[in-house]
Amino acid sequence: MRQSQLFGKTLRESPKDEVSANAKLLERGGFVYKTMAGAYDLLPLGFRVIEKVKQVIREEMNAVGGQEMLMTALQPKERWEKTGRWKELGEEIMYQFKDHSGREVGLAVTHEEPLTEMALRSIRSYKDLPLFVYQMQTKFRDELRAKSGLLRGREFIMKDLYSFHKDTADLNHFYTKVIDHAYKNIFKRSGLEVLVAEASGGSFTKDLTHEYQVLSDEGEDVVFYCTHCNFAQNKEVATIQEGMPCPHCKGEVKKARSIEVGNIFPLGTKYSERLGLIYQNEKGEKHPVVMGSYGIGVGRLAATIVEIHHDERGILWPEAIAPYQVHLIELLGRESGSIQRVRKAVEKLYKTLLAKGVEVLYDDREEISAGEKFADADLIGIPWRVVVSEKTLKEKRLELKKRTEATPKYITEKELLRKLKRPR
Amino acid sequence: MRQSQLFGKTLRESPKDEVSANAKLLERGGFVYKTMAGAYDLLPLGFRVIEKVKQVIREEMNAVGGQEMLMTALQPKERWEKTGRWKELGEEIMYQFKDHSGREVGLAVTHEEPLTEMALRSIRSYKDLPLFVYQMQTKFRDELRAKSGLLRGREFIMKDLYSFHKDTADLNHFYTKVIDHAYKNIFKRSGLEVLVAEASGGSFTKDLTHEYQVLSDEGEDVVFYCTHCNFAQNKEVATIQEGMPCPHCKGEVKKARSIEVGNIFPLGTKYSERLGLIYQNEKGEKHPVVMGSYGIGVGRLAATIVEIHHDERGILWPEAIAPYQVHLIELLGRESGSIQRVRKAVEKLYKTLLAKGVEVLYDDREEISAGEKFADADLIGIPWRVVVSEKTLKEKRLELKKRTEATPKYITEKELLRKLKRPR
Repeated sequence: MRQSQLFGKTLRESPKDEVSANAKLLERGGFVYKTMAGAYDLLPLGFRVIEKVKQVIREEMNAVGGQEMLMTALQPKERWEKTGRWKELGEEIMYQFKDHSGREVGLAVTHEEPLTEMALRSIRSYKDLPLFVYQMQTKFRDELRAKSGLLRGREFIMKDLYSFHKDTADLNHFYTKVIDHAYKNIFKRSGLEVLVAEASGGSFTKDLTHEYQVLSDEGEDVVFYCTHCNFAQNKEVATIQEGMPCPHCKGEVKKARSIEVGNIFPLGTKYSERLGLIYQNEKGEKHPVVMGSYGIGVGRLAATIVEIHHDERGILWPEAIAPYQVHLIELLGRESGSIQRVRKAVEKLYKTLLAKGVEVLYDDREEISAGEKFADADLIGIPWRVVVSEKTLKEKRLELKKRTEATPKYITEKELLRKLKRPR
Repeated sequence: MRQSQLFGKTLRESPKDEVSANAKLLERGGFVYKTMAGAYDLLPLGFRVIEKVKQVIREEMNAVGGQEMLMTALQPKERWEKTGRWKELGEEIMYQFKDHSGREVGLAVTHEEPLTEMALRSIRSYKDLPLFVYQMQTKFRDELRAKSGLLRGREFIMKDLYSFHKDTADLNHFYTKVIDHAYKNIFKRSGLEVLVAEASGGSFTKDLTHEYQVLSDEGEDVVFYCTHCNFAQNKEVATIQEGMPCPHCKGEVKKARSIEVGNIFPLGTKYSERLGLIYQNEKGEKHPVVMGSYGIGVGRLAATIVEIHHDERGILWPEAIAPYQVHLIELLGRESGSIQRVRKAVEKLYKTLLAKGVEVLYDDREEISAGEKFADADLIGIPWRVVVSEKTLKEKRLELKKRTEATPKYITEKELLRKLKRPR
């Protein structure tokens, strides 16, 4: 992509009404536009980041047998009255309103009710189980305070996986697989260290659930965690306290603020019982289906990466999530001979990289100083910066700098192409 | 995908409340689930179809320089009051309501207002033009009557492209490119013959606009069109009539019902003037930006394909849009020796096809008769059906049938793999 044509310019100043790093940097970097508190438009750079996060999640969901689908946001009142959540959620965070014909509808804040109803048509026998379906869908939640950029949205993309099982043992088996494989890989590939903390189930279940927490002062949660074995509990349900020895390993327990980037709920039979999702087992006996649900906020995950991976100059995207792999910067010089030579060399390199399948943002902007180009590159945070100038041409080298490192290296084009073979 | 595990079973009977072919077949085939009139959940098969349509559209949008982004559905009232459309659209189709704090918000039915506002930050000079951005985003429209399956939705994915230009000549240049390349290719790849009909601009513009119309009795529109040169007009603005000679070529003018699958609007300066989107030209003069918008309903396109390409047994998907390329069907026979032999051969073929990158739905369902499997394959409508049975194994051939043809062919595995190399 030629940066001169990119929709969404970098801003010199942070937006005045934003406090958190993700909100400031994502808006300054031209990733997002704020339509309302908690509702951000994704500009092309931000769209690419969110698509990268979705792709990582999709691969890991498919690897544990998840089938992707997409449910509606619009919901009829009657469906949610069956579980008592029309009133419960409506008082707090569910947008509910009358359509032009006077019918009451709402926007889904989660999808246990619709999916359980849908499953009535598919699940009748033990042979139809287990079943794993997920979506990455736009949720609407009327949060009282939506103030931390993409960390807490009124409109946001969420990955929600739902699992259906014949019994609790089978649920536990899958639940562990999600913890040990899918979620572990997703957060690792996103460059985040997570704690798996015990938590309460809110309106979803009365059982203990698990939250994925990333330590950060920007977080709204508070966790107690063992610095040795990583046992962790959300403050809401904590039985451990700072200073106590860890009940599992006697390690040191600390307290910290944290961001909840994911959660997993053993729902049990709450929804299947209320909505009549019953299956027949091998012996012909009827039992309610045992369910689990597994969420990750897609935008929140991207925002958390920014909170954790940034410095005073901008963002440092992990390779799997970066909008582009390479930020190619041309410094044209001042003489017309130099301008032509550099432009020609960069155009050629740009095409070579594209032909190799490398994702490149090419800063071809004229009348922008080298200093401004470098500042923008640091702000946007693409992992590799490649500079071509009269100087690098003379030396038959390219200037290559990792966003995470302080000093550049000078290498040949061949060496660059070898380096950019993506590791995964 | 193993069909025994697929979420979304085929139904023996059509849903009683549906009239149109797309609604009946998509629900019977396990593509969609109806949550409310006009709001359909996409089950895994339907999700794949919609992703295929999106991919075709994405490729053609990118080819004309479109940049993909994603705008919010939630909208503040103040933004839409500037163009007078808060009231205008609110009376008819825009969902508008108060949030829990009493603030009035709405759900976007289109995105001229938000995008023009966003462009204020990016467009200042002629150097920032032209600009082409698009999204495939979930729109909400409170349609009075949503009765034709996915043809008219209250919640639906729409591709909307917006273009920004320095003058009308540049708009016309791009407008023609969209007609002659992007839209032409999209509908061709979707297997649809379209008429480009003159139409009115509704709330978007006072100018004449263009609609892409597919002739179908299921359509809500009426067009007059020339059977010779394809000149067409929507009844709303028609100057030609059935029986008249075509004003362009003297050909025969006919009248027919049709489905509007896309539209393109030369918006001119309506939105840029009302929202203050002004740029400075080469001479330093200030002018309002000239705009165009270009829509395609993603779900409606898929539904139109079903309306046009179906027979009494089910759907006939074009290859580019089909959820899978191959429907692999095993007929296990009754003796245990036969069951094992067939199962082993099909498993091997299934893995070979997947390794070659062929998308396969593998009907591995036990206790389902050959007749039921064939009926389901015809209903789901995957382009190629491959059958493996004791009989085909003995003859060292596979049974291959195109959904569009009546009789199968018997070919070797090698010949099959050669055939399935995707053309495009």
